[in-house]
Amino acid sequence: MKLLVVGSVAFDAIETPFGKTDKILGGAATYISLAASLMNVKSGIVSIVGGDFPQEYFDLLTSRNVNLDGVEIVKEGKTFFWSGKYHNDLNSRDTLVTEVNVLEQFNPVIPESMQDAEVLLLGNLHPGVQLSVLENMPQRPKLVILDTMNFWMDTAMDVLKLTIAKTDVISINDEEARQLSGEYSLVKAAKKIHEMGPEYVIIKKGEHGALLFHDGKVFAIPAMPLEEVFDPTGAGDTFAGGFASYLAKKQKFDFDTMKSALIAGSALASFTVEKFGTERLQEISEAELAGRIQEFKELTTFEVEI
Amino acid sequence: MKLLVVGSVAFDAIETPFGKTDKILGGAATYISLAASLMNVKSGIVSIVGGDFPQEYFDLLTSRNVNLDGVEIVKEGKTFFWSGKYHNDLNSRDTLVTEVNVLEQFNPVIPESMQDAEVLLLGNLHPGVQLSVLENMPQRPKLVILDTMNFWMDTAMDVLKLTIAKTDVISINDEEARQLSGEYSLVKAAKKIHEMGPEYVIIKKGEHGALLFHDGKVFAIPAMPLEEVFDPTGAGDTFAGGFASYLAKKQKFDFDTMKSALIAGSALASFTVEKFGTERLQEISEAELAGRIQEFKELTTFEVEI
Repeated sequence: MKLLVVGSVAFDAIETPFGKTDKILGGAATYISLAASLMNVKSGIVSIVGGDFPQEYFDLLTSRNVNLDGVEIVKEGKTFFWSGKYHNDLNSRDTLVTEVNVLEQFNPVIPESMQDAEVLLLGNLHPGVQLSVLENMPQRPKLVILDTMNFWMDTAMDVLKLTIAKTDVISINDEEARQLSGEYSLVKAAKKIHEMGPEYVIIKKGEHGALLFHDGKVFAIPAMPLEEVFDPTGAGDTFAGGFASYLAKKQKFDFDTMKSALIAGSALASFTVEKFGTERLQEISEAELAGRIQEFKELTTFEVEI
Repeated sequence: MKLLVVGSVAFDAIETPFGKTDKILGGAATYISLAASLMNVKSGIVSIVGGDFPQEYFDLLTSRNVNLDGVEIVKEGKTFFWSGKYHNDLNSRDTLVTEVNVLEQFNPVIPESMQDAEVLLLGNLHPGVQLSVLENMPQRPKLVILDTMNFWMDTAMDVLKLTIAKTDVISINDEEARQLSGEYSLVKAAKKIHEMGPEYVIIKKGEHGALLFHDGKVFAIPAMPLEEVFDPTGAGDTFAGGFASYLAKKQKFDFDTMKSALIAGSALASFTVEKFGTERLQEISEAELAGRIQEFKELTTFEVEI
């Protein structure tokens, strides 16, 4: 097992200016594992679903080389469900429904088959759950990556800080970095977050790309400029999944490899937003992914001689 | 004469969270010409000032190899004056005073010494003035670059569109691109602006960098992440000045050279914001500029192998 993923496996119902879906496959761990499969990295999920979760979704993930030994099924329970409606600019959304359901009673257990994972990605979930997974690993993975969001800063900051203190890489957006650090300047925010524990700080800026901070150095990538963002759901999770998988594959955790991993994550996330939910992730080929990475090269490469 | 600049030469009084200035040297053409001098490009200014404009400012510009033959002095008039106060995030500001003064009666005349300019930069001014300069050049320069802003879209859209139709490169910010095109997606906005005339469309995104669109291709650069923006005044003008000077120096106007020019402009602009007004631009050395361009390389360069 290269990559162990903790996160939700869920139903989403999404409405955008371009249309709407019924309940479809969603959840952070789902996007992350699909991203890993596109990088040819074997991943395993620790999560929980209800008896209503269809076999076809399990089959889809299994066919993608995703180990589901760690997904608890609560027969009499219902799977986590989120429904949201995006505004016209696709940059903001209203949550219409959040049914936490079985996730409320989630007490993660790490199956033996996953205990040797080299990279642990703590997907966006209650930080108490993230921490308990980390503490229950018989040996600390070589790299621990944390994805979180403002909701946990508002409701569980103390345990979030304990969790952050134990991670190597944190991935949050610009507003969250400001909230976590109390600094407006992202350079200053990253410094304060380094002091909280993580050696690597990723600040995501949506359509403006992302920054990676480490040891006084910084790397910046733009987002791929797209004519249309069709559905942003899962883009952040896909990014985290691509990033973590690249590192799990390379088995190197230095700054240069982290830069490459950021590109891999961004390239994958740029596909996710092209269709509803996981649809686009399910269909892209290796050649398409290689092509998108080449586009990132062309987007950013320059020569200057003054 | 390599670069002809049309734009304001003015007084600014600036207040930021870090302090405030008295009336200091300002104006689009001032920043542009200082940027040109740092690129070792000879520029000339067409502008207008009042009798209150001090000799020391003329001397400063002349010492920087800036030709001032085209700067009309209205002895009994007063120089354009702008005063503004930046908010705490430095991303927005309130205009406290705008005294248009002599600029109101500006009827630009291009001295013979400047009529052979190869690159014409129409700095941010009333588009009627920009158009009259362009139409009064005895021969069209090889490259015409237009810088404008939302104020002219609100008040003089018709003549602005006539001006845009005659330019090769337009430089505007993201909100202005949306206003000008009626499109939210910047990729779509750039397409519509191409159709208005310019083959090259630069969309500036402030702290998020800039995009360059040409012939279905796109290039993206991040802004240099800074701990502190001290004073953003003149950053856009410096950017335009560095961009235009690089092209005037290289005498090449293809996509790859435009990319490099964008980096040169961004590197220079990243200095401008470090101190009040033109202060930082007046003191940087060639070595500092080369160092900043190297930092841009390090900020954006990566290798990926999936």
